[in-house]
Amino acid sequence: MNNKVAVFRREHFNAAHRLTNPKWDEAKNNAVFGKCNNPHYHGHNYELVVKVSGIPDPQTGYVMDMKVLSELVHDHIIERFDHRNLNEDCPEFKSLNPTAENIAVVIYNILRPLINEQLDMQVRLYETERNFVEYPAS
Amino acid sequence: MNNKVAVFRREHFNAAHRLTNPKWDEAKNNAVFGKCNNPHYHGHNYELVVKVSGIPDPQTGYVMDMKVLSELVHDHIIERFDHRNLNEDCPEFKSLNPTAENIAVVIYNILRPLINEQLDMQVRLYETERNFVEYPAS
Amino acid sequence: MNNKVAVFRREHFNAAHRLTNPKWDEAKNNAVFGKCNNPHYHGHNYELVVKVSGIPDPQTGYVMDMKVLSELVHDHIIERFDHRNLNEDCPEFKSLNPTAENIAVVIYNILRPLINEQLDMQVRLYETERNFVEYPAS
Amino acid sequence: MNNKVAVFRREHFNAAHRLTNPKWDEAKNNAVFGKCNNPHYHGHNYELVVKVSGIPDPQTGYVMDMKVLSELVHDHIIERFDHRNLNEDCPEFKSLNPTAENIAVVIYNILRPLINEQLDMQVRLYETERNFVEYPAS
Amino acid sequence: MNNKVAVFRREHFNAAHRLTNPKWDEAKNNAVFGKCNNPHYHGHNYELVVKVSGIPDPQTGYVMDMKVLSELVHDHIIERFDHRNLNEDCPEFKSLNPTAENIAVVIYNILRPLINEQLDMQVRLYETERNFVEYPAS
Amino acid sequence: MNNKVAVFRREHFNAAHRLTNPKWDEAKNNAVFGKCNNPHYHGHNYELVVKVSGIPDPQTGYVMDMKVLSELVHDHIIERFDHRNLNEDCPEFKSLNPTAENIAVVIYNILRPLINEQLDMQVRLYETERNFVEYPAS
Repeated sequence: MNNKVAVFRREHFNAAHRLTNPKWDEAKNNAVFGKCNNPHYHGHNYELVVKVSGIPDPQTGYVMDMKVLSELVHDHIIERFDHRNLNEDCPEFKSLNPTAENIAVVIYNILRPLINEQLDMQVRLYETERNFVEYPAS
Repeated sequence: MNNKVAVFRREHFNAAHRLTNPKWDEAKNNAVFGKCNNPHYHGHNYELVVKVSGIPDPQTGYVMDMKVLSELVHDHIIERFDHRNLNEDCPEFKSLNPTAENIAVVIYNILRPLINEQLDMQVRLYETERNFVEYPAS
Repeated sequence: MNNKVAVFRREHFNAAHRLTNPKWDEAKNNAVFGKCNNPHYHGHNYELVVKVSGIPDPQTGYVMDMKVLSELVHDHIIERFDHRNLNEDCPEFKSLNPTAENIAVVIYNILRPLINEQLDMQVRLYETERNFVEYPAS
Repeated sequence: MNNKVAVFRREHFNAAHRLTNPKWDEAKNNAVFGKCNNPHYHGHNYELVVKVSGIPDPQTGYVMDMKVLSELVHDHIIERFDHRNLNEDCPEFKSLNPTAENIAVVIYNILRPLINEQLDMQVRLYETERNFVEYPAS
Repeated sequence: MNNKVAVFRREHFNAAHRLTNPKWDEAKNNAVFGKCNNPHYHGHNYELVVKVSGIPDPQTGYVMDMKVLSELVHDHIIERFDHRNLNEDCPEFKSLNPTAENIAVVIYNILRPLINEQLDMQVRLYETERNFVEYPAS
Repeated sequence: MNNKVAVFRREHFNAAHRLTNPKWDEAKNNAVFGKCNNPHYHGHNYELVVKVSGIPDPQTGYVMDMKVLSELVHDHIIERFDHRNLNEDCPEFKSLNPTAENIAVVIYNILRPLINEQLDMQVRLYETERNFVEYPAS
């Protein structure tokens, strides 16, 4: 058994997106992505949970100050994606389909270098209450 | 005291929208609607609760069969708005700003004629967990 | 404007039930109640919210002590219906179809005489997250 | 039927409190308030929902801009009560027992003069998921 | 660190059940299973979350299309258990006590052969908001 | 793949606390802990989820009877911390800062010897809906 503690911080953002593969024609995109391929976009209230694990600092009792974690997520994720169109406004998705899977990987890759490398990290992203993803998979 | 019972059915849809008043210039639209005025849209997971009140039928014990209510909501609301861009794809909002207030009134006006006029009706619409509306206000 | 405050207490119970009208034949019962007419029953986690309204007592700041309200609900509702088969075990539903509407009316009628008559009362019953009822309808 | 729409904004704050009536001796306070009378306090995550009703402005589609409503609640309620001891830090409760009922009335009385008097207002306060109050009672 | 992403799909069904060991007499069954041994059954709203993990397909950005996952769960689990009496109507539980643990294992064993064997799988089953299980345990 | 099943039981308690390091002066405590350092305390509704994993007993279908697990948590955790001031009333935190991380470790260490050592154990503690921790980190 390890003696690490995980801390989780939940944040949210609202965004529009469209699922499409530009290499495919419209018929194939519709067959694969259905209503999610609407060229005028649809949208979601995304709920993001960031998990950071490590040994609590004996001075503070914190693995990582959740206010600091919350501010990092606000400055680097919420500012970037909230009230945006992921396909149109966000260079990260110019050539990457904004599925929940890909959004989670992008968020992980943005946050990972900003968190102390001694700490483990994972993200969970809820696209709806019934559809959600986790990266890296535990 | 009345002896009516209210029944509630909750459904959801995901849509993109943008808040804007076409009679105003961009500066005023930005001042009033802020990030919600993003010309490329953003989106939400809308949760819709339809309330119908009346005296339960003594044969069935139902005010109204919730399966029938659910099907009405699916056929007339979910089919119309789910995975759509409210501004671009939905004629109801061509000249009406798709605020939560206006979406709730539009939904009420679509459903009201489809429900027995002896029954009272109200809609509640959650745009996010923290922002929601009700029409008519009780 | 009135100066009453409403207090709400939420409790839960788990029960089996079946929807059926004994005056109808099986074909009609299946047509009306569908899967809910399964002769072997199905079940729910019922969430019950009891609302009591009045002027707070200036000595306590309470409309009604929620611990007392919770105990009343436990003694008279949870003890009666939790882990029961509503149709088989509960005389209240021997000749009354246990729809959510009828269960709410039965619960109201049990609790109403137990609550100070100066106080208003209402019950809300969730059969699922998506189907719920309120009595009397506000 | 009226044609008002209600808008709701949900916010939260965390606070410590103790229920006690200084005119009573300790035995009576313990008998009435039980564990809630702990002289060292206990605490809650309060969830506050503010409801404002009126006719939407045809220029904006808003009954009231929810960002403005959220800022009012932050400036006048969250700043005042969040991470506070209601009995010790908040003059509103120096001689008023901080029951959920009384906290809701205090919040209503603070916010009411700050909202356009043409608009109706109501507050709902969750002390826990299972105990909540509403003022004025609808 | 692995580079797998997990996708989760949540579905629900309502069922009646009874906990009992037919090899034991009634006294022992009551001692062990208490109210859950009611011979007339009780019931639950089961919430099922199926987790599937793997490398996203670069063409689609999907680990597995959640619509396909949802349809599999509907066809093989919801159709089989929804609005059923697990003990009476479901051969899987003729000689297996329908505890949450056993239901989760049964669901896993039904779904596992239907999902690409390159993908990892896990199920979580909520019997109530306060009691839930996961298989295989992570 | 293992063939263990995990069972989870969720309970709650309400408590007051204050974050502070007695070795630091007030300026440093305020800089590090901000509003959480209020000398008059603030409070939370803590939600606790205890996870226990193992092979279900073939006689009962239980990994561990959740009623027994619930009673253990009530007797050893809820009785100890509910409606208490963690800093003032609980010796566990006389010299340990009651951060969510430290509370989770304390709860784990109290419960671990009470659970069959063949079974794995983990605790998750929600301080708010947006801040939570897990120990040991998975």
